[in-house]
Amino acid sequence: MAQSPGSATLLSVLGTPLPLIQAPMAGVQGSALAIAVCRAGGLGSLPCAMLASEAIIAEITAIRVATDAPFNANFFCHVRREPSEAESARWADALASYAAEFGPPPKSSPKGASRRPFDAAVADLLEPLAPPVVSFHFGLPAPDLLARVRSWGSRILASATTVAEARWLAERGVDAIIAQGVEAGGHRGSFLSEEITTQVGTFALVPQVVDAVGVPVIAAGGIADARGVRAALALGAAGVQVGTAFLLCPEATTAPAHRAAIRDSAPEETALTNLYSGRPARGIVTRLMRDLGPMGEAPPPFPHASTMLAPLRAAAEARGSTDFTPLWRGQNRGAFDGIPAGEVIRALSEGLS
Amino acid sequence: MAQSPGSATLLSVLGTPLPLIQAPMAGVQGSALAIAVCRAGGLGSLPCAMLASEAIIAEITAIRVATDAPFNANFFCHVRREPSEAESARWADALASYAAEFGPPPKSSPKGASRRPFDAAVADLLEPLAPPVVSFHFGLPAPDLLARVRSWGSRILASATTVAEARWLAERGVDAIIAQGVEAGGHRGSFLSEEITTQVGTFALVPQVVDAVGVPVIAAGGIADARGVRAALALGAAGVQVGTAFLLCPEATTAPAHRAAIRDSAPEETALTNLYSGRPARGIVTRLMRDLGPMGEAPPPFPHASTMLAPLRAAAEARGSTDFTPLWRGQNRGAFDGIPAGEVIRALSEGLS
Repeated sequence: MAQSPGSATLLSVLGTPLPLIQAPMAGVQGSALAIAVCRAGGLGSLPCAMLASEAIIAEITAIRVATDAPFNANFFCHVRREPSEAESARWADALASYAAEFGPPPKSSPKGASRRPFDAAVADLLEPLAPPVVSFHFGLPAPDLLARVRSWGSRILASATTVAEARWLAERGVDAIIAQGVEAGGHRGSFLSEEITTQVGTFALVPQVVDAVGVPVIAAGGIADARGVRAALALGAAGVQVGTAFLLCPEATTAPAHRAAIRDSAPEETALTNLYSGRPARGIVTRLMRDLGPMGEAPPPFPHASTMLAPLRAAAEARGSTDFTPLWRGQNRGAFDGIPAGEVIRALSEGLS
Repeated sequence: MAQSPGSATLLSVLGTPLPLIQAPMAGVQGSALAIAVCRAGGLGSLPCAMLASEAIIAEITAIRVATDAPFNANFFCHVRREPSEAESARWADALASYAAEFGPPPKSSPKGASRRPFDAAVADLLEPLAPPVVSFHFGLPAPDLLARVRSWGSRILASATTVAEARWLAERGVDAIIAQGVEAGGHRGSFLSEEITTQVGTFALVPQVVDAVGVPVIAAGGIADARGVRAALALGAAGVQVGTAFLLCPEATTAPAHRAAIRDSAPEETALTNLYSGRPARGIVTRLMRDLGPMGEAPPPFPHASTMLAPLRAAAEARGSTDFTPLWRGQNRGAFDGIPAGEVIRALSEGLS
């Protein structure tokens, strides 16, 4: 197959032998998965949005110690907003029907809860670590912060879920754009619209983003084997980002019950849901999603839905139930199961030739 | 590129030089588009679900007269149900807010309204015409009817929107399966579930259907140029079905306002909606969809939402408004505009080599 436009440019941006990126997946992986991918010639990613400052430093240091290969540190760029009392009460009400089974939900979210957006404090701690690649989800940080990241030499990736978002990112000078199709597991990277009908399938998104921007495009969503890599390149992508296919790797920290749910679920058994965090994300349909409808009005702003749901989730998990657990996966889990991440990279790389 | 599994089998099923199918698009095309596609080596399709018996005969005869090439006659297989009084009243209520602008909606749907399912009477009229290929949407007709279609030599295609639907169709002996990804314009072919969260993107659907069934798989949804054809084959499809890319052809009967809306809309400006017919279909977001939400509880069973909406639509269209008009299109309209359908086939065929 002919090289796609931007292939050489993308490899120079990533600094890797292969244009294959392991998607950052907060909560189900740390440095171990990223290291295994880096060693195999892909770009390993460390999801930092749910890590405390000390953990970010420790995990990046672990990668640096383990490999000289480039890696990616991923951050969220949501605009943080505390829920109003009414918003907290609405979510507590929605969860109150489970009180008889699992105890009452909390009335509000703890202040400064999980998943902080990229800010000056994060930039301060990141500067001496200077990850070769930094990727952003939910848009980009403020221009001065973005300039700081650039100033220490990190190359910048960001996710677009629509052609409009891709243009927006290209105008702000990102080095490459991840075109995240609606098949992808986990959180949608969308930031210009909250309307989920805007979300476009990978097959339609990739070629239209390629035509709309001048930077290399990385296809994401539904890619889980060499066929998918080959198809993404045929659509004009310069590389791919793969998430779900790594969830059953030994280097991932995916919980046993989550692994079992991934193995047992059909591609049509996922949905976009905002119930687990307040923002739409794709996961396996659970009791909570069936009860409240996967996309609801009740959840408070991201990420407070998660923190207020936490006690219910913990109580259910203690009884062996995943009824209230986010079970992220995309619409194509592929066939890898228990295979080391380096082997997954090698299998995916067969789609490059 | 290596030939995909089932390529030779698919060509023998279709009887065409090229594994390229023009999607049947009821309401925006007749025999003229099908003839142009057949003459260019693709499989032209005639949508029959909205045609009276005489028109089916006339249109198929027109194709037979114009070309010796094989063609496809497409039918719907929904289970027809008249709306209850309560269902009609609910839909009339939902539309009543427009009464001041456009006059009151009808209180019920005319009996025996448009879009009849494939039944014995249709089989009777089709038998002497014996289309080389017959395709079904919304499942399959009853086994005895399906056996009749087979008995006169027609090859049978049907649409699957999930892996489960693909398996169901394969078990019933269809000759090839159209894997309709969520990007596709117009009506979803889904029939095992009414839940739209089950709908899978083309990138994830095609390889998983290929792995699940033994018959050739035709990829549909988001394919609008040679890149898409190449990518579909890379995913394991034996051929493709393309709809939206033909909507601006001179041989299509797409209304001028619909053509303008297609040209002016972004890929992220479509949604799945059940408001226009009672079943989910992808079209450009309109005022009706914004007002009621694209997927609503109010519409009566397919196709009665359409017939009760007709007066409002007609009144608005008379004033030059498409606020209540179904503006079907997929998430990738491609770049063809005013190009004859034969040229579109030739452009798509560049993705085959």
